[in-house]
Amino acid sequence: MSNPTAAILIIGDEILSGRTREGNAYYLAGELTKAGIDLKEVRIVADDQDQIVSAIHALSGAYDTLFTSGGIGPTHDDITADAVGAAFGAKVDVREDAKALLAAHYAARGAEFTPARMRMARIPEGATLIDNPVSVAPGFTIGNVHVMAGVPNVFQAMVASVLPTLTGGAPVLSRSLRVPRPESEIAEPLRDLAQTYEDLSFGSYPFVSDGNYGVNLVVRGQDEARLEAAFAALKTAFPEGE
Amino acid sequence: MSNPTAAILIIGDEILSGRTREGNAYYLAGELTKAGIDLKEVRIVADDQDQIVSAIHALSGAYDTLFTSGGIGPTHDDITADAVGAAFGAKVDVREDAKALLAAHYAARGAEFTPARMRMARIPEGATLIDNPVSVAPGFTIGNVHVMAGVPNVFQAMVASVLPTLTGGAPVLSRSLRVPRPESEIAEPLRDLAQTYEDLSFGSYPFVSDGNYGVNLVVRGQDEARLEAAFAALKTAFPEGE
Repeated sequence: MSNPTAAILIIGDEILSGRTREGNAYYLAGELTKAGIDLKEVRIVADDQDQIVSAIHALSGAYDTLFTSGGIGPTHDDITADAVGAAFGAKVDVREDAKALLAAHYAARGAEFTPARMRMARIPEGATLIDNPVSVAPGFTIGNVHVMAGVPNVFQAMVASVLPTLTGGAPVLSRSLRVPRPESEIAEPLRDLAQTYEDLSFGSYPFVSDGNYGVNLVVRGQDEARLEAAFAALKTAFPEGE
Repeated sequence: MSNPTAAILIIGDEILSGRTREGNAYYLAGELTKAGIDLKEVRIVADDQDQIVSAIHALSGAYDTLFTSGGIGPTHDDITADAVGAAFGAKVDVREDAKALLAAHYAARGAEFTPARMRMARIPEGATLIDNPVSVAPGFTIGNVHVMAGVPNVFQAMVASVLPTLTGGAPVLSRSLRVPRPESEIAEPLRDLAQTYEDLSFGSYPFVSDGNYGVNLVVRGQDEARLEAAFAALKTAFPEGE
C-alpha cells in the first residue's frame, strides 16, 4: 500500500515579496516524512481570494490532505477563512465556541476583545476547530483541508494537534501552561518531565510579551488520565505558570 | 502600467522530503522585488515529469515569466530539460556549444567528460543558453521560461545573468576568475575594485574543492570595453587566479 499524500499551501504577500523567509513548509515537510505521509507539492500564493480558492480546489482534489498556513489573523488581509469557505461553498460567520475561547483569553489578560480580534472567530460552517495552545485563536479543518496559522510557533503547535489524527490514532488532547520564564531556564526540568512521562509529548513555544520572555508549555497525549497527571506534575515544576 | 509578473517553480524530491531547506525562491523573491517584477506564485514539485510539465504549462501561461530551479545536473533524476522540452514540444538533445563548454571545463581540470556529465549538455531545441560562471554547465531559456540550477551559488549566478535582460536592458556580459583563496581574504581588494568600477557588478561565489577553499569572482556589465578593463584589474589584483 502506498503512503497517503499531502500538499501544503502557504498564503501571504510577505513571502512572495521576499520580506519573510518561509519556514513552515520546511518544518511540516520533515514532520510529514516522519509520519509516513508523502508531501507531493507546495504552493505559495498571495493574499488574493481567487488564487487561494483555485489552489485549494487543485490541491485538495489531487492529494489526500491539504495543509494551509497563513491568513487567519485579525487584519483585513487575513482572508483565508473566507477563501476556504468559498472553495467549499460554506458560509463563514463568527462561531460561538471560537468566540468564547477568544473572549476568555482576552478577559484573562485584561485586553479588549476588539472587532479585529473577533475576525479570528469567523469559521466556515461545518468545520471543526484546531486547538491553538499558544495564542488561542483556533485553526480549523473542513473536508480534507487543515487551515493553520502562519506564525511559526502557532503553526507548529497546530501541526502537533492535527498530525496524529491523520495517521489513524485517537484524538490528541492537550493541556497548556504559560510560564513567565525564558526557555533556557525551563529546559532541564521540562526534559526530566518528558522522560518521566515518555508516552506523552511535551512542547515548548517561546514568546516575548511586553519585553519579557516566556514560554507556553504544552503536554499532549491520547490518554486523558495520564495527561492530567503529567499536567499536575508540570504545574508543580513551574508553580509560577498559569 | 502594472509591473510584469513572475512565478518560480522549484523541482526536487529533497525539498519535499524536508531534507533540504529551500532558499532559492526566497533569494529570487528579493531580487524580483528590487527589479520591479511582481512574484505571484511559487510551486515546489517532485522529480516527476508529469508534475513538472503540468506546472510549467500552468505557470508560464498565467504569468509573464517563469523561473525554474533544480533538476539540470548529471544524475538520472535530473529530468528538468526533458520535462521542459515536453512542455514546449521541443526535441531535447546534446547541443554542440554546451558540450564544447563542458569539454573545455573538464579538460582544463584533467577530469573525465563522462556520459553523466554529457547529460548537462542536453538542451531543448530553440533554447538559448544561460551563462554559468560558477560551474560552467549552462541553464537555458525557452519561451518565457528560464531554467536554472538548484545549487544556490549557481542559481544566484544565473539569476544575475538573466534578470537584467528582463527589465529592458542590453545583454549582460560576464568574465570570471577562479581564485584558490578563501573568500575572507579576497573581500577587501574585491570591494576596492567594485568601488573603482561602480558601473559594473562584482560577484563572489565561494566553493570547496578537494578540501581547499576558493572563490569564483565574476564581473558583469553591459559595456564590453569596461568589462575587459575591470577583468584585467581583477587579474592584476589576484594573480593566482585562472
